[in-house]
Amino acid sequence: MNQQYSSALLERAVDEFAKLPGIGRKTAMRLVLHMLRLDVDKVDAFSDAISTLCHDVHYCHVCHNISDEDVCQICSNPSRDAATICVVENVQDVMAIEQTQQYRGLYHVLGGVISPMDGVGPSQLEIESLVERVDKGGVEEVILALSSTMEGDATNFYIFRKLMKYPEVKLTVLARGMSINDELQYTDEVTLGRSLINRVPFTGK
Amino acid sequence: MNQQYSSALLERAVDEFAKLPGIGRKTAMRLVLHMLRLDVDKVDAFSDAISTLCHDVHYCHVCHNISDEDVCQICSNPSRDAATICVVENVQDVMAIEQTQQYRGLYHVLGGVISPMDGVGPSQLEIESLVERVDKGGVEEVILALSSTMEGDATNFYIFRKLMKYPEVKLTVLARGMSINDELQYTDEVTLGRSLINRVPFTGK
Repeated sequence: MNQQYSSALLERAVDEFAKLPGIGRKTAMRLVLHMLRLDVDKVDAFSDAISTLCHDVHYCHVCHNISDEDVCQICSNPSRDAATICVVENVQDVMAIEQTQQYRGLYHVLGGVISPMDGVGPSQLEIESLVERVDKGGVEEVILALSSTMEGDATNFYIFRKLMKYPEVKLTVLARGMSINDELQYTDEVTLGRSLINRVPFTGK
Repeated sequence: MNQQYSSALLERAVDEFAKLPGIGRKTAMRLVLHMLRLDVDKVDAFSDAISTLCHDVHYCHVCHNISDEDVCQICSNPSRDAATICVVENVQDVMAIEQTQQYRGLYHVLGGVISPMDGVGPSQLEIESLVERVDKGGVEEVILALSSTMEGDATNFYIFRKLMKYPEVKLTVLARGMSINDELQYTDEVTLGRSLINRVPFTGK
């Protein structure tokens, strides 16, 4: 036992918290002492929620989003537009798009983007299963909604090449330009240039 | 289930993490997704460490520090000086003082400081048990090592009044003054004034 800790149990709990990303030993200690002040049943609820999730988690067989069933609520919802697939990097992106309430199609979660620097190649991503979904037919549009980074662009291009053999499927990408409420003078030059090139007719809306 | 989450289990785990102090829903989501990427046995080790700690935690009967036994390793260590008691606010303070390796006496963890604003009165702190320890005899010095805040000062004064009936016990307080490596011009005026009043003979050490 580290001399610093008066209890081996305390040290073990701090060690475990400190393994989480962005949590150092001081924060870990603060969190553990907070848990110690809680009722035991609240602590049990906490540790049970974490371990139940990790034991019983399912990923949707169709879109690879986290789900409680084999097919997620979005994919199995008949009122959603099955002819449109929105390709995203991860689960948080699905949540972000759902929150806009502007999208009624389905998703496809890649599980990351191609990034040779991090050792992530196309085979580690759910790209093959995307091609299979398109190959089955019935898909009219695939929306590429990846981050506008080099890695996102490379992944977009890779998917574009893979889906070239389905010319009937429209391939679109999220609009890039000034953010809503951005002041023009503070917009970076690349974004501003892109906004200028991709200007759209003003409809008064 | 909140529409935003594709899985009730996921939502529950995020809810639980978001209850921790200083952790919002976005950080909670990031932590939960990190746990999902771990092996299941690592997650079990995490939740087991937390719940074991909270179920089996002991507080030392003597000094009220967290301990695995009824009397902590510091209190039961015969090579430590039982005639000196250092009064601190919480468990972290014990760890901070232990790390200096400058103290060989025992501790007394109050569990906080008197703070009427937060509804903490003397009766919620381990002050009575401190007086009992002193009353048993054998104590030569009580070091008040509380924060140098108004609340800390009020608590110091309260303990001073309680221990006045034991004139044989020396009551000391931590030295206050410039921090080591502080530049004089940037030291705040209250601290600098105190350092000047409490100046000590220069011994060349």
